[in-house]
Amino acid sequence: MLAQTNDFALPTPSLLLDLDVLERNIAAMAARAAALGVRLRPHWKTHKCAEVAELQARQGATGGTVSTLAEARAFAEAGFDDITWAFPLPLSRLDEARALARRLTLRVVVDSEETVAALVRDVARWHVWLKVDCGYHRAGVDPESDALVELAKRIDRAPRLTFDGILSHSGHAYRAVGQEARAAVAEEERQIMVDAKDRLEAAGIAVPAVSVGSTPSMTAVEHLEGIDEVRPGNYVFFDHTQVTLGSCGVEDCAATVLASVVSCPPGADHAVVDAGALALSQDAGARLSTTRTMGEVLADRQPAQLDGGLRLVSLSQEHGILNRPVPVGTKLRILPNHSCLAVACFDHYTCVRGNEVMGRWRIRRVRG
Amino acid sequence: MLAQTNDFALPTPSLLLDLDVLERNIAAMAARAAALGVRLRPHWKTHKCAEVAELQARQGATGGTVSTLAEARAFAEAGFDDITWAFPLPLSRLDEARALARRLTLRVVVDSEETVAALVRDVARWHVWLKVDCGYHRAGVDPESDALVELAKRIDRAPRLTFDGILSHSGHAYRAVGQEARAAVAEEERQIMVDAKDRLEAAGIAVPAVSVGSTPSMTAVEHLEGIDEVRPGNYVFFDHTQVTLGSCGVEDCAATVLASVVSCPPGADHAVVDAGALALSQDAGARLSTTRTMGEVLADRQPAQLDGGLRLVSLSQEHGILNRPVPVGTKLRILPNHSCLAVACFDHYTCVRGNEVMGRWRIRRVRG
Repeated sequence: MLAQTNDFALPTPSLLLDLDVLERNIAAMAARAAALGVRLRPHWKTHKCAEVAELQARQGATGGTVSTLAEARAFAEAGFDDITWAFPLPLSRLDEARALARRLTLRVVVDSEETVAALVRDVARWHVWLKVDCGYHRAGVDPESDALVELAKRIDRAPRLTFDGILSHSGHAYRAVGQEARAAVAEEERQIMVDAKDRLEAAGIAVPAVSVGSTPSMTAVEHLEGIDEVRPGNYVFFDHTQVTLGSCGVEDCAATVLASVVSCPPGADHAVVDAGALALSQDAGARLSTTRTMGEVLADRQPAQLDGGLRLVSLSQEHGILNRPVPVGTKLRILPNHSCLAVACFDHYTCVRGNEVMGRWRIRRVRG
Repeated sequence: MLAQTNDFALPTPSLLLDLDVLERNIAAMAARAAALGVRLRPHWKTHKCAEVAELQARQGATGGTVSTLAEARAFAEAGFDDITWAFPLPLSRLDEARALARRLTLRVVVDSEETVAALVRDVARWHVWLKVDCGYHRAGVDPESDALVELAKRIDRAPRLTFDGILSHSGHAYRAVGQEARAAVAEEERQIMVDAKDRLEAAGIAVPAVSVGSTPSMTAVEHLEGIDEVRPGNYVFFDHTQVTLGSCGVEDCAATVLASVVSCPPGADHAVVDAGALALSQDAGARLSTTRTMGEVLADRQPAQLDGGLRLVSLSQEHGILNRPVPVGTKLRILPNHSCLAVACFDHYTCVRGNEVMGRWRIRRVRG
């Protein structure tokens, strides 16, 4: 059952990217956005890769989304010119963001009085999204608060600011298992954002666009009336968490870590692979998952749990611990719990189609 | 109380390295190894930095230890020529390891029949350590097994192999809170390794050296009779886990992440900083810690918990969630749970002495 991955004469650990699956995922989300009547501005933080962003653009994506200024710079260098930095703008990065905004359309996100005030008095022109809390309760203004109207008004009336609209992220869809639960989160987000837009327009503030989304909500949502743009990211690769949530099947997962069994001492009841926290990350997976695993061991692209219950039970820096003996030298494909964080451990993808190695794509694993 | 870190006009997140503390830690461990009568071969996986390895060498360290071949290559490029790759040698990396071993003294670690067989029949000369399980139960042969003697004999008798000795890692000291518990793990490791050496010598196999250690064991151990070498790594920086274990105080921690509060919506009971899983890692800290935190917020270099209970309660990719409101723009120093993993998120250290920025040191954040 594990033989398939032995076909790769690759050093381990390697991050494999299955291009057939990737292309299918990109096409499927593009078709879904088109059918829902919304623009797709994919979150590039998942892949950090110009080649993947290019594939998304060719399928009709409008610009992209990043989570750090370093990512924005990396994609700017790769020639992309319309980027939303979907993270509350840190005041300590204002000078650097301004420098980048001179070279391309950089759209920033705010949710505080302090940051809006800094932008209003700044000398530059900024594209500004107002972040709204759609129920995730991480960042964003309360959609029923006075602050929603006050901050939108200040942005809208500032002569050098362009109000791009209101933006949310339904991260709480990661706590919703199953199609129905994820669809309910998506509908909650849609309704909250449409109501927020209505409140602003009633106060005389034109809202040019409403931007929402996450991968688990976008794979479940039934309609998006009143919404203009969606920003899922993880869907390009999916991962074990998305399988648990029901966003996809194991066969839809495009990024896996190829690892070798390096230790299986005589008499031991476990084995060690060369993929630890710096290959898979320590993401513990979906909160509601019933089986604790630090990454799903695949055999013939299906969970190896079906084949004797092989599981990755813990990780240290470079070691992964399997729950039963496996011969030294065996190669395994491991599906990460969280592909965004596993990708950030690597410098490049090893691109494959089936069992054939096609080449390498660089990962912009940038910080700062 | 939080004002001190506002003095830094640095972009956030930045990884700060306090050189005064670093130098003190390096000198203290060097003195400790000398007093215990053992060679110090520090684990470089913690810092991944040529400048730090150079400081360790100047204080008398003998070579160094790495956990990946990529780290070994990076330190080779920086001019280091005696490196132990303290990870069970993956068969998939044999060709690359051989190429590196031609340029410097690369010492490899084995614990399996399969890997010993591959080295015995290899054309190259190898320096080989036999890994022994000293109670941690991750990798290593059972010290009481026939395999210990069989594998050592095969290495010792192979014409092209140099048997360097037996090696262990007391990783279970990370589950031992307090001086007494950590010292007990250290003594258990020492006794097991000395007994293993005696068994091998009784079987007619000369054991050139015994190498042991971890930071929590080395900061507690009382004597090391019969041991030749120790390989702690984390002690250069320490971290919140080591504070919990009692290996050090907060004032001994040299590496911290400078973060900014980026979101604190009106009415919210929390705040968001720009240091998430890709700045601090998702390491949950010492297993026996009573207070769950994803990193300790410091105020004047003391835990901010003393000052109102400010804690980092969860992390997503780039967001860190604080458990109470803090004004946007506030800068905080955060002590990572696990400095080795936090360092691996960054490209460079920002070196400081007190509040003065001294320069940058590159982190060899290599993979592969």
